[in-house]
Amino acid sequence: MSDEGMWLFNDLPREQLKSQHGFEPTDQWAEHLRLSSVRMNVGGSASFVSSNGLVLTNHHVASDTLFKLSDEKNNYLDNGFVAHSQQEELKAPDLELNQLVSIEDVTQRIKDAVKPELSTQDAMAARRAVIAEIEKESLDKTGLRSNVITLYGGGRYHLYRYKKYTDVRLVWAPESSIAYFGGDADNFEYPRYCLDATIFRVYENNKPAKIEHFLKWSTKPLTENELIFVSGNPGRTSRIFTTAAFEYQRDHRMPYTLNLLRRREISLQQFRLRSVEHARRAKDELFGIQNSRKAYLGMLGGLQDPQVLKTKRQSEQDLLAAIQADPSLAPAAEAFTQIAEIQKKRAADLGKDISIHNHLFRTARTIVELVDEDKKPSGERLPEYGDAGRESLLLELYSTAPLYDDLETHMLADALSLALESRGADDPLAQQILSGKNPADRAAELIAGTKMFDVEARKALVEGGVAAVAASKDSMIQLARTLDADHRHHRKIADDLAEEEKQAYAKIAEALFKTRGTSTYPDATFTLRLAFGTVKGYEQAGKTIPPWTIIENTFVHEAEHAGQSDFVLPKSWKQSKDRLDPKVQFNFVSTADIIGGNSGSPVVNRNGELVGLIFDGNIQSLTSDFQFDDRQMRATSVTASAIQHALRQVYQAGGLADQLGK
Amino acid sequence: MSDEGMWLFNDLPREQLKSQHGFEPTDQWAEHLRLSSVRMNVGGSASFVSSNGLVLTNHHVASDTLFKLSDEKNNYLDNGFVAHSQQEELKAPDLELNQLVSIEDVTQRIKDAVKPELSTQDAMAARRAVIAEIEKESLDKTGLRSNVITLYGGGRYHLYRYKKYTDVRLVWAPESSIAYFGGDADNFEYPRYCLDATIFRVYENNKPAKIEHFLKWSTKPLTENELIFVSGNPGRTSRIFTTAAFEYQRDHRMPYTLNLLRRREISLQQFRLRSVEHARRAKDELFGIQNSRKAYLGMLGGLQDPQVLKTKRQSEQDLLAAIQADPSLAPAAEAFTQIAEIQKKRAADLGKDISIHNHLFRTARTIVELVDEDKKPSGERLPEYGDAGRESLLLELYSTAPLYDDLETHMLADALSLALESRGADDPLAQQILSGKNPADRAAELIAGTKMFDVEARKALVEGGVAAVAASKDSMIQLARTLDADHRHHRKIADDLAEEEKQAYAKIAEALFKTRGTSTYPDATFTLRLAFGTVKGYEQAGKTIPPWTIIENTFVHEAEHAGQSDFVLPKSWKQSKDRLDPKVQFNFVSTADIIGGNSGSPVVNRNGELVGLIFDGNIQSLTSDFQFDDRQMRATSVTASAIQHALRQVYQAGGLADQLGK
Repeated sequence: MSDEGMWLFNDLPREQLKSQHGFEPTDQWAEHLRLSSVRMNVGGSASFVSSNGLVLTNHHVASDTLFKLSDEKNNYLDNGFVAHSQQEELKAPDLELNQLVSIEDVTQRIKDAVKPELSTQDAMAARRAVIAEIEKESLDKTGLRSNVITLYGGGRYHLYRYKKYTDVRLVWAPESSIAYFGGDADNFEYPRYCLDATIFRVYENNKPAKIEHFLKWSTKPLTENELIFVSGNPGRTSRIFTTAAFEYQRDHRMPYTLNLLRRREISLQQFRLRSVEHARRAKDELFGIQNSRKAYLGMLGGLQDPQVLKTKRQSEQDLLAAIQADPSLAPAAEAFTQIAEIQKKRAADLGKDISIHNHLFRTARTIVELVDEDKKPSGERLPEYGDAGRESLLLELYSTAPLYDDLETHMLADALSLALESRGADDPLAQQILSGKNPADRAAELIAGTKMFDVEARKALVEGGVAAVAASKDSMIQLARTLDADHRHHRKIADDLAEEEKQAYAKIAEALFKTRGTSTYPDATFTLRLAFGTVKGYEQAGKTIPPWTIIENTFVHEAEHAGQSDFVLPKSWKQSKDRLDPKVQFNFVSTADIIGGNSGSPVVNRNGELVGLIFDGNIQSLTSDFQFDDRQMRATSVTASAIQHALRQVYQAGGLADQLGK
Repeated sequence: MSDEGMWLFNDLPREQLKSQHGFEPTDQWAEHLRLSSVRMNVGGSASFVSSNGLVLTNHHVASDTLFKLSDEKNNYLDNGFVAHSQQEELKAPDLELNQLVSIEDVTQRIKDAVKPELSTQDAMAARRAVIAEIEKESLDKTGLRSNVITLYGGGRYHLYRYKKYTDVRLVWAPESSIAYFGGDADNFEYPRYCLDATIFRVYENNKPAKIEHFLKWSTKPLTENELIFVSGNPGRTSRIFTTAAFEYQRDHRMPYTLNLLRRREISLQQFRLRSVEHARRAKDELFGIQNSRKAYLGMLGGLQDPQVLKTKRQSEQDLLAAIQADPSLAPAAEAFTQIAEIQKKRAADLGKDISIHNHLFRTARTIVELVDEDKKPSGERLPEYGDAGRESLLLELYSTAPLYDDLETHMLADALSLALESRGADDPLAQQILSGKNPADRAAELIAGTKMFDVEARKALVEGGVAAVAASKDSMIQLARTLDADHRHHRKIADDLAEEEKQAYAKIAEALFKTRGTSTYPDATFTLRLAFGTVKGYEQAGKTIPPWTIIENTFVHEAEHAGQSDFVLPKSWKQSKDRLDPKVQFNFVSTADIIGGNSGSPVVNRNGELVGLIFDGNIQSLTSDFQFDDRQMRATSVTASAIQHALRQVYQAGGLADQLGK
């Protein structure tokens, strides 16, 4: 059996671990690892690595914060940062870290509230209401961030309670040229040579937080076939998807999304070319897009591989045969047909919503929706506006992160042009938002007419409520209001289809539980999971790829790519070359089952000691969104030892390194 | 009146030139300019500039040849080239230059052959037949390349006879870093600082050709508002298009094309990132795509400007009113409806043809079609396979230009993936060409299985004819055969619609002749035209943009963009800085009406002396595909004086400079 699975911490694969790897985790082992693990609201994972609040994550997870802390003079994203004392640590403007404190199964309470005779829409309303109620109760009782998580596509519901940390400060970041050495070319490739790491510290009451559960650091080198564990928050997988859902992804959603990503990528590249400062302003956004584009291309490549579809069809036929053999599972058979119908409806509405990809617009839309939703009880609102998530929502909405009018204008012009394309330029709503101008001129006018740059202006509107928003002359607020009804219409189509689909997948999940037992894991949901595997190379195009790289070869890799700007090591590394131990393990691959969102996850050994930090998967692993197969799929990590070594030898941060694991 | 128009050399705007600019061209003046002008088969313009065969064009027009002459060791495209003697001049593998020797109106002969009672398809066949007959007759009689050109969308037909030059040798090219200084960022922008020039020499019988008509070089600096002329081959404009045709371009074809261009751009960028040599291999293809992408974005921006559509609608309404006032013009009124219907049909088939963008495949398709078409009389073949164009076709098909298997594989994998997307992955033909593999594996297999790299293999198939092609085990030939019927089906849809549209536009053209007189110019057709205008700056965002730049500011422009790789001047320029006259005019703008294809066109003064070389238009000019307006639209040129100056001071090529104009 392969090392497949993103397991729930309250349902660990104990038998599999024992039989495959002779390992029996104790409850204490698992609890310690869970409580040492951290989720980051920017979409990534992390871990506590000291008693005084140090948090280790990836540079590319921290990059959003590094970007927001930078300006024209201090480019921490590119040039790195070291705080030589706690006073020098820099507070992130809108970072929230979550520690998963407890898990409670609330499936029955939700099933009881959602009667089977309800229509799809009433079922959705009933489910939203009971989920809001559960979350609110939990928040009131514990003061903890409380989220009901939908697992197995609707087969199970668990209440997750998180301790939140919102005073998060930057301690250390390397230069992007070593964090992301090899750039877009090496991204999702292997072998790698990246120090994709950053250290934050969480504070409480303006002092470093005292952390009970944090990871010790292993002092031993990794060995081949060594058992390792990954504790992190994989974002989303689609392994339960039916063949019809695969086909929708392959023939509609992914090609559409890729066109959108490529469009944004080229557009930001054009912006970047204007000057060095333009390049800085666009960098974080552009990185995110390039990363997604490469990931989507890999996923589409997987779906376009006839073998992947063949495997899915076979497994679906097997399940259908089992379902047909058991009359009590008849609803599951219908579910396949329903899901196929849902894909058709989804394809018909794909790209029809006018999606304005722009920070100021997103802010304005949030305000317009927020004041409107607040008129309803929490359980009837769009879920993101419920009471339980209010603090986190406002943290983002009132972020003081810098916004640049030239970048906002550039992005808005392209978004308006896209609106004309996706709806047809004669569409009345498209014409209305263009207001008789061409996209570029209209974008400039809209940006000139908004105060959404200003946090106080946002607060005043939220506090002024519906009346203030209705009376607002702010151009972005007016644009968001103009689009509101249409956006809600398309959102409702999407939500209704998602709800129908959820009910269908819940039936398939039940059939799976009945025919294959419950010892399986649900698709990823950006919540804490445990993956496991071994440190292991692989075969590719007739060549054996070794399981790890060493620091020495980083310099060789640079030399092999002389003349390419993404392969120039930072000055700090060149100057420290003689101090670095050439044989220290740098990056390594393992068979652990991970996906986007796992970035920054700690990798630990049997003793629960930190041995690495997940930062990537190889190209083959991208297909794992749909199917896992450990022959070639690998998770890529930077070793804990390289991080320690670089802190001491390159960054002169021995004082920081001394705190790690203590 | 504005300086609008791309005028036929046999129908010059004499009155307009006289009234607007007090200039009366003599027949000798026009004939000399026409015979000094050159069309390049790679899609661009040029001019004879010496009695011993020197030809001046743009670096970016020559880049295809520079790329084909380069290899891993000699990168002439990037590093430039100077032949210090005629022996050192490098023969281009597949360049053909055309000099327009005569023009003859054959409209009546074609109209006589295409009876009005014929069906659309019979009309197309009759027209193709009579055109092939005229071309063949002319070729046999004169030995000259003979092409019947469709003007005014089908309102007029002229027979153009060209003297061909196919022994073309590279004499001088600057480094791409000065030819394209500012890169993609500055492309289509102004002010500019580019030495976008290259010099070839044409040979006959292995000796420099003796050229009777060539341009003298002006020795005076340009002055503001000076009258200038551009003699070149604008590729395509769409000014006769109806509103419905504009809308099709805006809502369908341009968004589709841009998605395709962005897709190829990102794909080639990924290839380029692998190594310096990969970057070299992809460079010419990538430049072409980026240039098109920026041009299309500008054109779409124009069409998305409500003012442009408003102007078009108004002019259409005026014409329709005039048409309705004259019962003899009733067919023109119907034509508008027909054209609207045609756009709908075109939109329905857009992107359905499996288009494999790959050099080896294109070669294979040409061979498969060629042997098949050759079974028919010349007049019944697809036009590109007619007897009249055979030599030019074979020049390309048997080109010894290098092809790179890694680049071909990369492009093919993406093309196969696109085929799956555009047809849906379950499409039987898409499945058939994938042959059970994923696009990347299948592409590798196809490239490994083809001999299309080898010119002798191509010749053997062409000479072996239908039987040899049918028996061929070559993977690319087999792929082209697999796709042949489907491709012919979609080609026929496109050709039939084009034919119907041609007949409709011919009716509109007749109405225009009747209501507005014949003193107008036809849309561009990649044939020789004369444009005129003045050297003139413009206003943009409240600023006055001066009409020319000087060499001094090239170095300032570099300093302002320090840190950006596209703004680094070549070593040769840095070393020659002290020898360069800082005040020499470098680039300039004029109001002349140009478009893609005009690249490389000579710019001459009243005396017919060379003052510049067209290489670009500003961003505003891109809308001129659809509508001309000389308030902001400008054509961008490099001055003749800067070319001479750089040859002497930077490139130590005084001997070459001495030959110019003599």
